[in-house]
Parts: sequence; C-alpha cells; structure tokens
Amino acid sequence: MGKTTAVSPLAPAQFPDLPVIDGVRFATVAAGVRYQKRTDVMLAELAPGSTIAGTFTKSATRAAPVLDCQAKIGGTSDAGAAILVNSGNANAFTGKGGVTAVQAITAAVADVCGIPQSRVFTSSTGVIGEPLPHDRITAVLSDLKTTLDANGIEAAARAIMTTDTFPKGAKAEVKIGSKTVSIAGIAKGSGMIAPDMATMLVYIFTDAEVSQPALQAMVSEYTDTTFNCITVDSDTSTSDSLIMAATGASGVNASESEAFKDALHELMLDLAHQVVKDGEGASKFVEIAITGAATNGDAKTHAMAIANSPLIKTAIAGQDPNWGRVVMAVGKSGAAADRDRLSIRFGDIEVAKDGWRSPNYSEEAAAAHMKGQNIVIGVDLGLGDGKATVWTCDLTHGYIDINADYRS
Amino acid sequence: MGKTTAVSPLAPAQFPDLPVIDGVRFATVAAGVRYQKRTDVMLAELAPGSTIAGTFTKSATRAAPVLDCQAKIGGTSDAGAAILVNSGNANAFTGKGGVTAVQAITAAVADVCGIPQSRVFTSSTGVIGEPLPHDRITAVLSDLKTTLDANGIEAAARAIMTTDTFPKGAKAEVKIGSKTVSIAGIAKGSGMIAPDMATMLVYIFTDAEVSQPALQAMVSEYTDTTFNCITVDSDTSTSDSLIMAATGASGVNASESEAFKDALHELMLDLAHQVVKDGEGASKFVEIAITGAATNGDAKTHAMAIANSPLIKTAIAGQDPNWGRVVMAVGKSGAAADRDRLSIRFGDIEVAKDGWRSPNYSEEAAAAHMKGQNIVIGVDLGLGDGKATVWTCDLTHGYIDINADYRS
Repeated sequence: MGKTTAVSPLAPAQFPDLPVIDGVRFATVAAGVRYQKRTDVMLAELAPGSTIAGTFTKSATRAAPVLDCQAKIGGTSDAGAAILVNSGNANAFTGKGGVTAVQAITAAVADVCGIPQSRVFTSSTGVIGEPLPHDRITAVLSDLKTTLDANGIEAAARAIMTTDTFPKGAKAEVKIGSKTVSIAGIAKGSGMIAPDMATMLVYIFTDAEVSQPALQAMVSEYTDTTFNCITVDSDTSTSDSLIMAATGASGVNASESEAFKDALHELMLDLAHQVVKDGEGASKFVEIAITGAATNGDAKTHAMAIANSPLIKTAIAGQDPNWGRVVMAVGKSGAAADRDRLSIRFGDIEVAKDGWRSPNYSEEAAAAHMKGQNIVIGVDLGLGDGKATVWTCDLTHGYIDINADYRS
Repeated sequence: MGKTTAVSPLAPAQFPDLPVIDGVRFATVAAGVRYQKRTDVMLAELAPGSTIAGTFTKSATRAAPVLDCQAKIGGTSDAGAAILVNSGNANAFTGKGGVTAVQAITAAVADVCGIPQSRVFTSSTGVIGEPLPHDRITAVLSDLKTTLDANGIEAAARAIMTTDTFPKGAKAEVKIGSKTVSIAGIAKGSGMIAPDMATMLVYIFTDAEVSQPALQAMVSEYTDTTFNCITVDSDTSTSDSLIMAATGASGVNASESEAFKDALHELMLDLAHQVVKDGEGASKFVEIAITGAATNGDAKTHAMAIANSPLIKTAIAGQDPNWGRVVMAVGKSGAAADRDRLSIRFGDIEVAKDGWRSPNYSEEAAAAHMKGQNIVIGVDLGLGDGKATVWTCDLTHGYIDINADYRS
C-alpha cells in the first residue's frame, strides 16, 4: 500500500517493555513474501490448552485466512496452538488459490509444531488480489520453529507492519486474589482503517486462565468500544482480525474477574489509539465525543459522520476551528438531530449552542485549541442520553502522498 | 470555503451559448456579502403564472432559506415570482437570526418586484454559522430591479459561484408539435458535494407550459439519477437546492411531452457532470457503473462506496489501476456481494473476474486507461439485475490545499 514514510509525529516515544507471557513464544523471519530485507513472517506458539477468541472484519469480500479463522474460532482443545502472520500480501480476492494457500500454510505449521491443523490461525496483510507465494512461507517454518523465544513479541510487532511507521504494543498486569496475571498485545494498521468488527491485525496474549466463551465475550464486547470506534479513512479492510489467546500458564482463573476485564478493555483501547496515531499522513489525534443523542446508535452514527468527513479532517489539518462543517456532518449523518438544540465544543471551548454560534464564542480560543496535537470535538444533540466516542486523525497531504503512489 | 484556484482541467472550453427564455430576466450585483470586487447576488424575475418546482437537501441541519423554499414550493399562482441568490454566506446554522434574514430579504424582493412574498424563493451559499448581513442585500434590490435583462443568465451563473472555478450552464431545445420550447439551466458547486436530494444550487428555466405537479414530478424523478448520483467528497451540504421555473411564455404545453422530459433529464445530467468536473482539486472525471446487483438500491450503495473511498480516489489521482481497493469498497458497502462472482473492469479492460484477477489481466492496458482524463470503473456483482451509475472525481493535493486553508 505504498511507500514507507517518516515515523508518525503522534508515535509513542518508545515501544513499551512488554511482559513475557508464560505459555507463548514468538519467532520472526524475512521470508521475502513481498518486501526485501525486512521481517515479514511471525509465528506465535501457544501452550497446550490455551483458549482462543477472535473478532473479524464484516467485509463481504473478506480474505481467505479470515474465513479460515472464523471457522476455527470457538472450539476448545487440550492441544497446543499457533498463530502465523505474513505481511506484504493480504491473500485477499485470490479465489481458490487463496484457499489453497491457507491450507498449505496451516498444514505445514501444524506439522512443524506438532499440533492439529484446526489449532493453526493465520492472517495475511498487504496488497489485495495478488497470489500469495505460500511456498516462501512454508519453506522457512522449520527454521522459525528453532528460534521461538518468549521474549520475541517486539520483533513480532515489527514483522506484521505494512505502511505502519511504528510497532504497536500495550500491556497490563492484573492482581487477582493474591496472584498477578499479565496481558500483552500487539497491533498493526495505519490505512484502510474503518473497522466494522475487529480491525486490522491485533494479537493479545495472557497467562490467565479464561474459558473460551468468557474470552470470546470479552473481546467481542470491548471490540465494539475500541477498535470499532476508530477510523482513519472510512475504508474497511478485507482482512481485519483480532485474536486473543489465554494460555492459563499462571494457574489463575480470570473468567469472572472485573479487574481483568477492565485491564483488557483499557489495553485494547490503547492499541486502537496507537493505530489511529499511525494513521496514514496523520498529524493530529482527534477524539469525537457525542452526548445527548436519541440513542447510543445515533451517537455512533453522528460520531462516525464527523470522523469520516473529508472537510472536517482537512480543516483539522489546517488548524481551522471550522464548526460549520461539524453542523454539516451531523446534518448528513442520517441519525436524529434538531438543529436548534445542537451545541458544539472544541476542547473546553463552546463554539455553538442552541442552533447558533455560542454567545461566548472566541475564535482565538478555538483556534488555540486546534493548534494542539490532541483535538477534542464535543457535540451534544440535546435529545436524549445516547453517547459515543470515536477516534480519528486528520487528512493531510501525507495521506495523498502515501496512497496516490503507484503500487509497483 | 477557501481560496480560489486555477480553472479545473476538466472544465468545458467555454460557457454554452444559452437561449433566452421568454418570461425570465436576470440581474446581478456586487453587494459585498463576503467577497470583495465580484458579483455575489443574483435576481431572476419570472413572468406571471410561472409554475415552480424544486428539490432540496435532506440534511437534518438544513439552512433557513431551504426551509423557507420547501414551505412555498407546490402552490400555483397567477402572480409573478422571483428567485434571489447570494454567495459568500450560507445563512445556515444561524438560529432565529437566519429566519429573520430570510423574512427581510423575501419581503424586500416582493416589494420591489410587486409580487406576493410567497412567490419569492431564496438561496444562500458560502460559509456556515456566520450571521448573514441581509442589509447589504436589501440595500441593492432597487438597483438590481432596474438592470433586469433577458440575456443575463451567464452573469447569474457567475454570481452564484463560491469555490467553483468555472460557471456551469446547459441548454436544450425541444420540438413539441410544430413549435419549439427552450430550457436553460445554471448550477454552482464544487465541494461539500454528496447530495441526498437535490444538490448545490441549480436553477432551470423553460418557456414551456408545464403544470406544477408535472414539473415537480419531473425534477424529483430526474434529481435521483443526476444530482443524487454525483459525489465529490461524501459531504452533504446544508443548503442544496434545485429550483425549476416554467414560464409558459411559449404557449406550448409540455406537461406530457416525453421529448421535453428526456431533454430535461439530459440537461440535469449535464449540469451534474459539470459540478463533478469542478470538484475541488479534481484532475479526473470518474464514472462508476454497477451492474448485476441484487437490487438497484444495492447497486447505488456499492457505487457510492466506491465513489467515496479515499483509497480509490487517491489511487485514481495516482493513475494506479488498483482494483484491490475496489474489492475492498464493495466489501465494506454493506450491500449484498459474493466475492467469487465479482468482476471488475477499468474502461474496457477486464481486470478481475469470478473472484480473482482476470485471466486476461494486463497491467499495462489497465494503467493506460488510468492515464486518461475520463475514467470508467465497471463492477458486475453477478447476483441480479440491479444497476446504478454515479460520477465522481479523484482526491488530490488540490482538495487538501483548498480545504485545509483557514477560513479567515
């Protein structure tokens, strides 16, 4: 999806120091799937009995590995498991050849790792519509297996990058009774970001014991308020996947732990925000907070209409407190709105109230907020209790540079 | 909405030589509503008994003049009528002050022209949320009235421009029996273009006699397949309005004339295409033609998902036949699709078929099509008889330049 660029100005200072998750080991390699001289395949090996849950894109044209994962998620097994991911090629819209590639890779991983093929989950990310050269991946599996390392998660986060300008990781430690369990997650994604389920590629690991139904319920619930609440460009990928594995190696059961759920929710939100902060061409991180909508669904619709409006995203890039465009987006969204009850704020500055410019309006104060790197647009519909918050970035020349670049 | 730029490369060579419409006279003036040293108010005076029809934005935050027009459209009267339009200020999201401004302007026009206030229709286009200085408009009405001219339509087309880089006009002559009637139309619009009813500002005049219900039926029907099938940036204006007036001065009744309807439909499509060709930053004119969808509604949904995808619009700007992004857009649209029945063409070149790259795929041929100024993307869903065609432009650095520019 285009050339790499300098690291996003919104990138964290450094990759976090992620904890080792007992029961998970990682290996990466440069297999030459498409890129040269960089790692592009990662293998995560999971201890026997790990429970696995996932959420996936709702795209009607979803890729072969997504369909394969969806068919496998939900079962339980005492066997080990593995996740294999390649970057450089999405194996999407590749017809029967795509299915053949997934079969070949999952069979080879099962063989090398000594696990059932039904416990091998794969993801592919990169260009759409090109046949995946799966032989390049199966050829490196034996070597990969020999380099598995419990400390390999940062390298894994790097191997799954495409147009990402920084690797994305987040962690949590949760005390349950007298013991502590850990969670570590990684993600990739910076363009084609407007998830309609899970988003992009996200892998989360914990040494807690969590039953498969409980784990699935957690990731499904929190996907809705994290990855499904971000957008870079309104374009939904064919390959979005989130997979979470609980190895149980700590011996601590977290299926019912509210502290664990809260920590997981926060970790997922952290990763989702990192994806937005690596949005193609992004120079500002933007929160859209809707309150007073007729329903939560209406609030989300308004929020996404604002977050995906090219006119608003370019105004933010231009540091222009152009609240008239926010009025426009609310109007076009299709969700309930009453022009004369609408109020809008930029940061803490009320710019519009009751259907007109705020009596306290200060162009200078609003403009000062827009000069910051973190922008907050608040909209109250004055209709009910519905609310939603979504996150996006601005639309800059950088996005055009990256995406108007010819693929070859 | 930002600075003016050079004339669009997609602009027609010249403004068409529009026919005089018997029963309509135009006047324009530089009233200094916002712009300096350019005309920004136009008045169209309509002969007694003219029938008037219109279509308007569905935005929930529509502007005061739109609401006023909607309340007045539909009646019939033997009195004269008038259309008054200002550019530079949209009088949108201006609360009670906006209603007061419309009342003041329509009362003053009625007074100057000697017609009922219920026969005065106004539109305003420009910045949202600023109070309209309506005194500047009412102050020039007496002078305007004295300069009314049957030949003034090109000047009217220029006076209603905002970020437009060229004035937009189209004409038709229709033989009905042994007589000929004429139609002339003008339009403005180049950003915030994703109509959800009529779009932008469009004014069409004919000397045919057409009953009000017949005229309304015609413009409603053809708006759906013309102005509602174009998009520049997916952003729907608060002020979109189309008003058509039939003066009847020719004495020829066209209410039931198929030739008249066809000519009107074609004229509306011509104006809609001109709006796209003046899309902010546009360098290419793009047709998205969907066939084989489950329903016509599904076809329109797919077409708009493709036309509004930033990734596709930037790929077109980059002259990249990136059909993988078309697959993505079909997948995200929400309308029915079967990945393995999908075929895609760029111009006459089949690039994808039955869920995979076409066996005849030629990157060179596809790339050659993308180098042209007129791009056609054809998608067949292979599901049914549903079809739709929409038109858009590419997304370039020019769009960012225009819209990231601070308002003041």
